[in-house]
Amino acid sequence: MDEITFAVLGTGGIGRRALEVSQHKDALTPVAACDRHGVAVDFDGLDVDELLAATEGNIDSEPRSGSEESSGDEPRDSEVATDGGTGATTAGGGVKQHGEDRGVVASSQARPSEDAIQEIIDRGDRIDAVLLALPNYEHDFIPRTADRFAEGGYSGVMIDVLKRSRVIDMLDDRSDEFEENGITFICGAGATPGLLTGAAALAAQSFVEVTDVDIHWGVGLKSGYEDNRGTVREDIAHLPEYDIETARDLSEAEIEAIIDDHDGVIEFEDMEHADDVLLERAGVCDADDVTVGGVLDVRNDEKPTTTTVRVTGRTFDGETATNTFQLGDETSMEANVNGPALGYLKAGVRRNRAGEYGVFGPADLLPGF
Amino acid sequence: MDEITFAVLGTGGIGRRALEVSQHKDALTPVAACDRHGVAVDFDGLDVDELLAATEGNIDSEPRSGSEESSGDEPRDSEVATDGGTGATTAGGGVKQHGEDRGVVASSQARPSEDAIQEIIDRGDRIDAVLLALPNYEHDFIPRTADRFAEGGYSGVMIDVLKRSRVIDMLDDRSDEFEENGITFICGAGATPGLLTGAAALAAQSFVEVTDVDIHWGVGLKSGYEDNRGTVREDIAHLPEYDIETARDLSEAEIEAIIDDHDGVIEFEDMEHADDVLLERAGVCDADDVTVGGVLDVRNDEKPTTTTVRVTGRTFDGETATNTFQLGDETSMEANVNGPALGYLKAGVRRNRAGEYGVFGPADLLPGF
Repeated sequence: MDEITFAVLGTGGIGRRALEVSQHKDALTPVAACDRHGVAVDFDGLDVDELLAATEGNIDSEPRSGSEESSGDEPRDSEVATDGGTGATTAGGGVKQHGEDRGVVASSQARPSEDAIQEIIDRGDRIDAVLLALPNYEHDFIPRTADRFAEGGYSGVMIDVLKRSRVIDMLDDRSDEFEENGITFICGAGATPGLLTGAAALAAQSFVEVTDVDIHWGVGLKSGYEDNRGTVREDIAHLPEYDIETARDLSEAEIEAIIDDHDGVIEFEDMEHADDVLLERAGVCDADDVTVGGVLDVRNDEKPTTTTVRVTGRTFDGETATNTFQLGDETSMEANVNGPALGYLKAGVRRNRAGEYGVFGPADLLPGF
Repeated sequence: MDEITFAVLGTGGIGRRALEVSQHKDALTPVAACDRHGVAVDFDGLDVDELLAATEGNIDSEPRSGSEESSGDEPRDSEVATDGGTGATTAGGGVKQHGEDRGVVASSQARPSEDAIQEIIDRGDRIDAVLLALPNYEHDFIPRTADRFAEGGYSGVMIDVLKRSRVIDMLDDRSDEFEENGITFICGAGATPGLLTGAAALAAQSFVEVTDVDIHWGVGLKSGYEDNRGTVREDIAHLPEYDIETARDLSEAEIEAIIDDHDGVIEFEDMEHADDVLLERAGVCDADDVTVGGVLDVRNDEKPTTTTVRVTGRTFDGETATNTFQLGDETSMEANVNGPALGYLKAGVRRNRAGEYGVFGPADLLPGF
């Protein structure tokens, strides 16, 4: 495949790891990265090592209080994490923000900007793909950001690693807009939804009818806890006693107390993960047949359970069986989010260059069902 | 996706099962099927039930003797099975050939033809995809058949379920020809290569470097043995003591003796399966890093081992891990060949309609590595 240039919106956990993983990928050149403080652009390719080193310990990921004024397209509250399902964000806890320059501006390649996203849009004709690595903003932030790109005349790939099912509908509402503008939008392309959604779609190929998809993830987060407080907060919103709003209003101390109550290991059942709608839109099964749950251990690096996808179905010759996909326990959440994100990005660019526009989920980029 | 019309070349095990599985698939309409005796065409959709019932026990799948004259593009000897890796062909043993009309002509929808393939080519403008379900012919039969379609002005999808690595090179040699003619050729799209190649490519997404892909299949064939003697013969060619030529020359009695020697269970190591070159061409790993083996039990329906793909690699953060994909033991070989074949066919039609031509392997139809 020809060279692909891409931009990263957001330089928190996902954005930083995506830049890092791209260094291992042929034909992928990161040319721009931004956060709400500034932007770095270099069409010869960003110096990723410098950017990561300069901004280490200087990530802008603070949540704003619910009462704080915000306007326009600037990110507001921590509301929906968009971390590909198993948490690669750094948002939510106000951690890692020190030094004179905040966020990406700490890099010598970056400069402050009043509207960093607009600066990316203005250079969109030289950017093949835009990875929206924007965690913990309100759940229509990604759709609204896509609107800005469309209005700004961008025609290329946009890709996110969002989790919540409801955001997919908001993107689908924009399908015509994307098609008119030549935008190929890939949604839910992290770990789950993303890698595991794709695995489910592929595992379904043995069957003529899929009756059950069970996705169960395990994440051990001890060494990554400080970087991933926002994800923990967002995951807490999936617990039966909480929702997005109540979880957002929790203090750090309250979150710590919840973690203590669970002895550091929090189990989730029947989460609102977009795997369901993404598999349904690809025709694999009904959204109701998809179950997502997981176990998060914030005090151990070892996964508390092996991440497993089980797809049960009926074969054309009348048998019922279950195909299984398992991730090795040594693969980190970050590896399972960012590898697939860039893999789907490449697939999206190929689609875009062939003139296929609109909204695609991971399962749409696999063999048809 | 819009309606897809497809033709099946060959009405042995794969062709018949592909027609049957397509009945369960939305938007897939079989409009033509042929063997060397005749052709059935109906653009309103073949009556698959009638065709299968009429030709049951009447499949033309006899091998011709090595000394028999043959010419042109008519199928000759049993040389290379093209069954998607775990054997869904009915060729090789001269079984199931009785009744007055041989092969597809037994169906009321079919009529004899001197050159059935040409009749398909002549109607190619109404056929979106052609599944080459042609088992046990010489290994350049599929490339030569593709040539005929290209020369005949066909522009659409061609898809095979071949196994042998060397055939991929022959198809790649025709890449320019395909691109000029608007042909999207999908090769190796059965079980292995095919479903399992795709699973390997997807499992690789956690890693920045894949060091080892191990594909190990299990097939229990008791109830399907009569239908799959050709596959057994072709599998024997993978044993260290045999090759394609010597296996072709074995009598039925000699094959039975080999099976007896192995107590009905034959193990294969380091087979020449195209998974290796298909993963290499997609950039996932070197062909040398791919190992394919399996266990065939012709006296039990139960699989002697669970079909498993193990992908070992290194993550961007320095860990080594193995991701695993397993097929449920109740899934038959036929289910694992024909579901994926039609799934890749759909993906191929989408590519073709977007103007992407040339040669694609299964891994090329998944997220990029």
